[in-house]
Amino acid sequence: MTIIFFSGTMDKALAMLILATTAASMGMDVEVFFTFWGLNFLKKAKSFKNKNILQKMMEFMMPSSRNKLPLSSMNMLGAGPVMMKKLMMSKKMPSIEELFEMAKQFKVKLIACSTSCGIMGVGPENMIEGVEIAGATTFLSKAKNAKINLFI
Amino acid sequence: MTIIFFSGTMDKALAMLILATTAASMGMDVEVFFTFWGLNFLKKAKSFKNKNILQKMMEFMMPSSRNKLPLSSMNMLGAGPVMMKKLMMSKKMPSIEELFEMAKQFKVKLIACSTSCGIMGVGPENMIEGVEIAGATTFLSKAKNAKINLFI
Amino acid sequence: MTIIFFSGTMDKALAMLILATTAASMGMDVEVFFTFWGLNFLKKAKSFKNKNILQKMMEFMMPSSRNKLPLSSMNMLGAGPVMMKKLMMSKKMPSIEELFEMAKQFKVKLIACSTSCGIMGVGPENMIEGVEIAGATTFLSKAKNAKINLFI
Repeated sequence: MTIIFFSGTMDKALAMLILATTAASMGMDVEVFFTFWGLNFLKKAKSFKNKNILQKMMEFMMPSSRNKLPLSSMNMLGAGPVMMKKLMMSKKMPSIEELFEMAKQFKVKLIACSTSCGIMGVGPENMIEGVEIAGATTFLSKAKNAKINLFI
Repeated sequence: MTIIFFSGTMDKALAMLILATTAASMGMDVEVFFTFWGLNFLKKAKSFKNKNILQKMMEFMMPSSRNKLPLSSMNMLGAGPVMMKKLMMSKKMPSIEELFEMAKQFKVKLIACSTSCGIMGVGPENMIEGVEIAGATTFLSKAKNAKINLFI
Repeated sequence: MTIIFFSGTMDKALAMLILATTAASMGMDVEVFFTFWGLNFLKKAKSFKNKNILQKMMEFMMPSSRNKLPLSSMNMLGAGPVMMKKLMMSKKMPSIEELFEMAKQFKVKLIACSTSCGIMGVGPENMIEGVEIAGATTFLSKAKNAKINLFI
């Protein structure tokens, strides 16, 4: 299975993680390609080094980590994501962070889109460990032979 | 064909219904998995029973039925969907409700994501009849053997 | 590969164009189906002819061309797309227009969804040259035999 994770919102990150960890636990090979806003998911922290002025402005306005992602609907200036996290805790669901740990243990492959990295000024030093950087060609070669391809 | 219906907006519901009914009319097996905001599509009405306080707040803010879904773009506080419905009527297009009836007649399988149901506090009693509840494993087993998989 | 281009935002248009041109350059057959807001990508210019009052209102509020598309996130009343274009220029990336030219040279097939055209009141005279108009049946027949299908 391949997933293009484009949107970088908390709710879609949950969908991506649940699908990726479940598929991996069923024995499938899973690769997730992080593009555009999805790159925010892989960030270590905000960083303004080696960025031009436009990239610095973008970085300033974007969420600082995968735990600060907005919701795609009913974000309500940040109240929505807080409610959603509390809801998940009240239902004893694993958090985004826990699901992500699971994904890594299950060897879900994490790939950052090189074009997006170039636009946003994100390099390996800004991302968590274990992320590969590759282009659309790499994605397409994998997707061509995958049974499931999703753009989230 | 499998479709994950995640977004729960009126325009994406139309896309999902047109694809599902057309595919079914061509003889394809079609399964639609309703997750997250997509669950609103299957609701009978707003319900606050058996919900914790956070789920009640969520329910309060969410659309009451599949006829009250927002648009993903140009929603304009509800004016967009009204315009869209009038536009479709003026063009003699079937409504969301009529397309949904068609989908059921064509035996499109409706599946509610069990994890999403858990988060939102939605049970079989809150949903229309004929909906199955199942998890990501069920989706992935179907999708693996499907010719078309879409995340909408 | 088939892509349904539904959203009609600038960032998703970039993703669609990068995937389509890369796949075509790898020798794959690529078809892009433009539906709903995605139709704005194919428009020549705003046009109010042969439209009913609702379609005129819609047209009035929609972007005038593929160079005026909003961002799906951080649009900031149009400041976001301007920043994104400048960013891409500063990184010497091809623009939307250049990528689109490439796609056409690589024979990426452009198909406008007939149902969406009917709703929005868009005809061949409102669209750029080289666009075919077809329905969901056409899309599904292609997608059934494609290796990669994405809904963007």
